[in-house]
Amino acid sequence: MKNFSEWFHNVLEEAELMDARYPIKGMSVWLPRGFQIRKNVLSTLEELLDEEHEEVLFPMLIPESELAKEAIHVKGFEEEVYWVTRGGLRDLNEQLALRPTSETSMYPMFSLWVRSHIDLPIKVYQTVNTFRYETKHTRPLIRVREITTFNETHTVHATQQEAEEEVQVGINIYKEFFDELAIPYSISKRPEWDKFPGSKYTMAFDMIMPDGKTLQIGTVHNLGTTFAKTFDIKFENDGGEHEYAHQTCYGLSDRVIAALIAAHGDEKGLVIPPQVAPEQVIIIPIIFKDNADEVLKFTDNLEEILKTNGIRVKQDKRDLRPGKKYYEWEKRGVPLRIEVGPKDLENNKVVTIRRDNGKKEFTDYDEATIVDTVKGLLNSITMDLKQRADNFQEEKTYSVNTVDQLKKTINKKGGIVTANWCGDSECGKDMEEKYGIDILGTQDADVEGECVNCGGDANYKVLVSKTY
Amino acid sequence: MKNFSEWFHNVLEEAELMDARYPIKGMSVWLPRGFQIRKNVLSTLEELLDEEHEEVLFPMLIPESELAKEAIHVKGFEEEVYWVTRGGLRDLNEQLALRPTSETSMYPMFSLWVRSHIDLPIKVYQTVNTFRYETKHTRPLIRVREITTFNETHTVHATQQEAEEEVQVGINIYKEFFDELAIPYSISKRPEWDKFPGSKYTMAFDMIMPDGKTLQIGTVHNLGTTFAKTFDIKFENDGGEHEYAHQTCYGLSDRVIAALIAAHGDEKGLVIPPQVAPEQVIIIPIIFKDNADEVLKFTDNLEEILKTNGIRVKQDKRDLRPGKKYYEWEKRGVPLRIEVGPKDLENNKVVTIRRDNGKKEFTDYDEATIVDTVKGLLNSITMDLKQRADNFQEEKTYSVNTVDQLKKTINKKGGIVTANWCGDSECGKDMEEKYGIDILGTQDADVEGECVNCGGDANYKVLVSKTY
Repeated sequence: MKNFSEWFHNVLEEAELMDARYPIKGMSVWLPRGFQIRKNVLSTLEELLDEEHEEVLFPMLIPESELAKEAIHVKGFEEEVYWVTRGGLRDLNEQLALRPTSETSMYPMFSLWVRSHIDLPIKVYQTVNTFRYETKHTRPLIRVREITTFNETHTVHATQQEAEEEVQVGINIYKEFFDELAIPYSISKRPEWDKFPGSKYTMAFDMIMPDGKTLQIGTVHNLGTTFAKTFDIKFENDGGEHEYAHQTCYGLSDRVIAALIAAHGDEKGLVIPPQVAPEQVIIIPIIFKDNADEVLKFTDNLEEILKTNGIRVKQDKRDLRPGKKYYEWEKRGVPLRIEVGPKDLENNKVVTIRRDNGKKEFTDYDEATIVDTVKGLLNSITMDLKQRADNFQEEKTYSVNTVDQLKKTINKKGGIVTANWCGDSECGKDMEEKYGIDILGTQDADVEGECVNCGGDANYKVLVSKTY
Repeated sequence: MKNFSEWFHNVLEEAELMDARYPIKGMSVWLPRGFQIRKNVLSTLEELLDEEHEEVLFPMLIPESELAKEAIHVKGFEEEVYWVTRGGLRDLNEQLALRPTSETSMYPMFSLWVRSHIDLPIKVYQTVNTFRYETKHTRPLIRVREITTFNETHTVHATQQEAEEEVQVGINIYKEFFDELAIPYSISKRPEWDKFPGSKYTMAFDMIMPDGKTLQIGTVHNLGTTFAKTFDIKFENDGGEHEYAHQTCYGLSDRVIAALIAAHGDEKGLVIPPQVAPEQVIIIPIIFKDNADEVLKFTDNLEEILKTNGIRVKQDKRDLRPGKKYYEWEKRGVPLRIEVGPKDLENNKVVTIRRDNGKKEFTDYDEATIVDTVKGLLNSITMDLKQRADNFQEEKTYSVNTVDQLKKTINKKGGIVTANWCGDSECGKDMEEKYGIDILGTQDADVEGECVNCGGDANYKVLVSKTY
């Protein structure tokens, strides 16, 4: 992939995922195939969230007075908020924000919902559209003005301990989710100056993209009692005293789909993991004039068998050259292709071709064998995609000992570079500015020696990269 | 139900469906139980739409220049559109509308998608939030400023004939959908002055609410070529000539949920049809101190059996009086309650209580019998709810011969009153004004005699009511 940016745009178009020609910058249309992938990705996520959380839906508009209540929070968003100022032919009395995120829409309601400790915990999530007035260069799914897929979980707890545990619950859900999609990640604690505005701390997931820059694909925030104090979320404890509640929130966006595409695609276009593929198998009957009935009877039967066994399958019977069909379904990333021609019929065999590595195999055609084989192949594809993507993330993660190496590695190789760091904000910002890099965050580790930048005592392993 | 309006508000609150206390008028929060019903309603609908249509997702904001392109259309909406005029700290160059409906967001893209007759038909739908700056009194789900659940289908065809057929497809999908939810309806063709702005004609579904007023719950529009001409949606036909495409669109909203609640509820609160109930069965173990283990072993087993057989079931093990639990689950509208106490254990029986009619039955407890019985009861509940709702709509639909009877019937009995009508717009508007009623629309019927209002030749059966 020589030019990732160009490749990415082409894949969105050629795999018919999105149409970026919508007449507002930074807003795109989800086409049917893209929408199906998005839907499958969301159900994978929601299945995990539903174990402990309930789905809700809050209004999209937020009164200015609510958005402005939490000073640090609004400071973090004020340059990016879209404002509704008119209704019909009149000016509104109070302007309304298109939610940039939903803390200030949800928490005034949480304040009404929480009275006593028996109302806790609250653990809810929603999947909504949010808006950011991006002034930078936009890019579909990665940097957009309408985030069409914003999945945000919000929780309220009686104790700090429970909020800490919920942070771990959130991290584990996201780990499992990304693992199911075979998306690799590095987790770190964002530095003070890059945490979620108003939060106590932010844990973040980053993936190394094919061009070596990292993409933030998920964040988990411990909010402490900051928002509870602002929005008056208090409960009566066992002893009859009123306490502020402890909160967390965590979220994912359209970027997960960008990560999915980037992690597995290749020169031929999209490669979708079977878990979320609209079609897991595409059947191509190879028809000549004199055998059409026979072949189609065979492939119809094959399609039926796979469908009955829970495999998402489609047959392409269009009157086109098989080569053209192969090309099209490869571009669309369907994990497995099955070809059936007259010769295969004679030998009672079918040909399977894996999208990920092009490997071709012949399989005996009887119900049990074919179902087992297809399921086995889909499984292998999933595992191999994951292995390949994990390897890439690992290979592109470097450990260095000096700030010189750090600078060189980032500039020459990209990826994530780790080093010893003191953890001091001044030192961190100095490093970002001097070397034109971004500190992703820190990982707790047994660290000995000096900070790579200031030479003070090292306390953390720091993760550094160039970011999207 | 003495006061429907009050009853409706109470049900939303007590069945924990929505919270109307959000700090913007006309915008409410979907609570987890409400959200589940909404989700089940949407999957019922989408299953029907998916047979011939594909799901997509368009941006929420529409540039003013696009919204304003179709003059009649914008005229119909201009008093209700919310406008975004600021992004961050700047004024936008062009103000952006929050979509009131999506024709003007979709059709500029359709214009890019349609080149040749082989690109047709396009049949897509989306479920999104839309916005109307309502100046009238708002009411959750019925008259709102954020329509959180707007399901809209848009189609493009090569011929007028195909567009006509699609109108019928839309009507049939909605019929089947409402039938599955046991929501009764009357279908009519809206009069000229009440059709969708920009359309050729509008077919509409109306339900008679408990207070006798009608609620529009779905509409199907034939758009002709009006929008195609405005947005330049043209295709090259077989003969190489360029023609304008023929379009339809049809939609449903949150009002479906309002109809569902209103059609089946009673003095005790919500009654939800099994098809969309979050829980179809609630199991209440009746526990005394000395039998807890035994009863819970029994009810756990019962829960497992029902779950395995595809029934949505929940068990309420909370440490509360059974009476309190009954009351709570009745308010929440769960179709079937199963009670298991020590006596039932002895007799190896369970007690089932239907939410819709309170009927209590004893059933032998073995796996086959209990599953059959529960499925049978859920089926009966569905059929009885449908019968009862259909009867109400039928009983409240009156046929009259004079305009005096029409006026009296509407004022005394409410409902829908049908009469002979000429079909002339002047006459229709005159009738609306003189009698303070609304013409829902017309049905084609063998009509003889005079128009009930002007005395001219009658050409249609007209449906008249007071409306929401």
